[in-house]
Amino acid sequence: MCELLGMNSKLPTDICFSFKGFQARGGGTSVHADGWGIAFFEGRGLRTFHDPNPSCQSPIAQLLSAYPIRSTNVVAHIRKATQGGTSLENTHPFQRELWGRHWVFAHNGTLSGYAPPLSGRFLPVGSTDSELAFCWILQHLHDEFGNHPPDRAVLFERLRQSAIELAGYGAINFILSNGDCLYAHCSTNLNYLVRQAPFARAHLKDEDISMDFAAVLSPDHRTVVIATTPLTDNEQWIRIPAGSLWCFENGEIISRADTVAGTNHPLTGNSACGTL
Amino acid sequence: MCELLGMNSKLPTDICFSFKGFQARGGGTSVHADGWGIAFFEGRGLRTFHDPNPSCQSPIAQLLSAYPIRSTNVVAHIRKATQGGTSLENTHPFQRELWGRHWVFAHNGTLSGYAPPLSGRFLPVGSTDSELAFCWILQHLHDEFGNHPPDRAVLFERLRQSAIELAGYGAINFILSNGDCLYAHCSTNLNYLVRQAPFARAHLKDEDISMDFAAVLSPDHRTVVIATTPLTDNEQWIRIPAGSLWCFENGEIISRADTVAGTNHPLTGNSACGTL
Repeated sequence: MCELLGMNSKLPTDICFSFKGFQARGGGTSVHADGWGIAFFEGRGLRTFHDPNPSCQSPIAQLLSAYPIRSTNVVAHIRKATQGGTSLENTHPFQRELWGRHWVFAHNGTLSGYAPPLSGRFLPVGSTDSELAFCWILQHLHDEFGNHPPDRAVLFERLRQSAIELAGYGAINFILSNGDCLYAHCSTNLNYLVRQAPFARAHLKDEDISMDFAAVLSPDHRTVVIATTPLTDNEQWIRIPAGSLWCFENGEIISRADTVAGTNHPLTGNSACGTL
Repeated sequence: MCELLGMNSKLPTDICFSFKGFQARGGGTSVHADGWGIAFFEGRGLRTFHDPNPSCQSPIAQLLSAYPIRSTNVVAHIRKATQGGTSLENTHPFQRELWGRHWVFAHNGTLSGYAPPLSGRFLPVGSTDSELAFCWILQHLHDEFGNHPPDRAVLFERLRQSAIELAGYGAINFILSNGDCLYAHCSTNLNYLVRQAPFARAHLKDEDISMDFAAVLSPDHRTVVIATTPLTDNEQWIRIPAGSLWCFENGEIISRADTVAGTNHPLTGNSACGTL
């Protein structure tokens, strides 16, 4: 299996503190030593870092844990290979362009017997079930909407249907972003945390490092952090229910819905963070 | 304008030495301070690094100039913005997937009045003429060959035709790679160098740094380095003729042809490096 890390923020913010703890799990405090990657959106722009080596030993990961890249949407992954060998092309997050925007995807879980027909519009470069699922998700979006991206509620519902179909093949915890907002699907295990005023001091689980967010963030800052396993031991992490898709924008939950086969859960629409 | 750097190698090799000199030109020894990027192919896999800040001041560029990433195809770029603002989404090299392979592209030059019809198969994320040209090149490949990549000679001829058409709009020096081989097109200014046994000591133009390649490379190593302006002051750089497209594989020139409108220069086929 693998571990996921995501961030969605109202204002551009760095993820150095969270990444420091996450990085340690890539072969240090945990077993996810088969590569790591991280993608930072800055407006429409995207920069990614990938390494098929353990993040706990990676000079690039070391740099990123100390070098603040300010972003509103971040997707990161540390890998314990299940399907597909340990190689750069199998290292998450994966990246494609659709509708003139970059999309990135990282997955935790294993899909069994998953071999969807692909039109060729998006094809995997590597051999993971994860990249295959990503290509299929984007193919379905393009098949349904052509060159015209739908409004957000319609897009969310289409992604919900894709998540339901994928969940029929196994565990499909994923984080997906196009830079506007961040989608998180929990199939088995995913947690989130909201950091907003009044800010407090946080302490990592995997390193003896603390951060006083009140000292570094302005009062109008608001950030959602998503992780397979909570990264801090003194903050209120919330377990995302298995079988649900969430959408975050500006550090708020804007939509969530069930992804259990046969459900037709209505969208929650725009809801202020904290009321859900 | 901008500067390009490419490498095609028989065996995976790092580009630290060349990149050290190239990096200095990004706001240091030259004016290309509007961002930089580099893409490394490792087999089918690709890792990229992008930064909209000057490479001469970038901690990431500093790391890469000392951290050996061994690759057979590298595409790098330092930018002096002409079309499109200084932003991450306008930072070369650009990346797309076609036929289940990553493709990367970096451009030096300016295209005027260039507004090709786009089908939507590949769309620019940023606002540069360069990314637009890249999307159009890939669209043409897909329009002509669908989901079935042609053999190399046919692909080369198609790229030659695209280069001729693009050259009608202005300067289109570019480096393009899909990880198998590396294409270089010279419209106004591009140079290359072959490093092969017997290896010698090389000295950078932009930094007082030397490298004794005989001490670090095995005798069967062979590497082509391509740069807008020669990076060393004691090696035999060869000026690529304006209006020509070249293809390199395994550190050898495997094809070259004219790209002057109206020409129908036959392909050179497989030719040993050094005989061309």
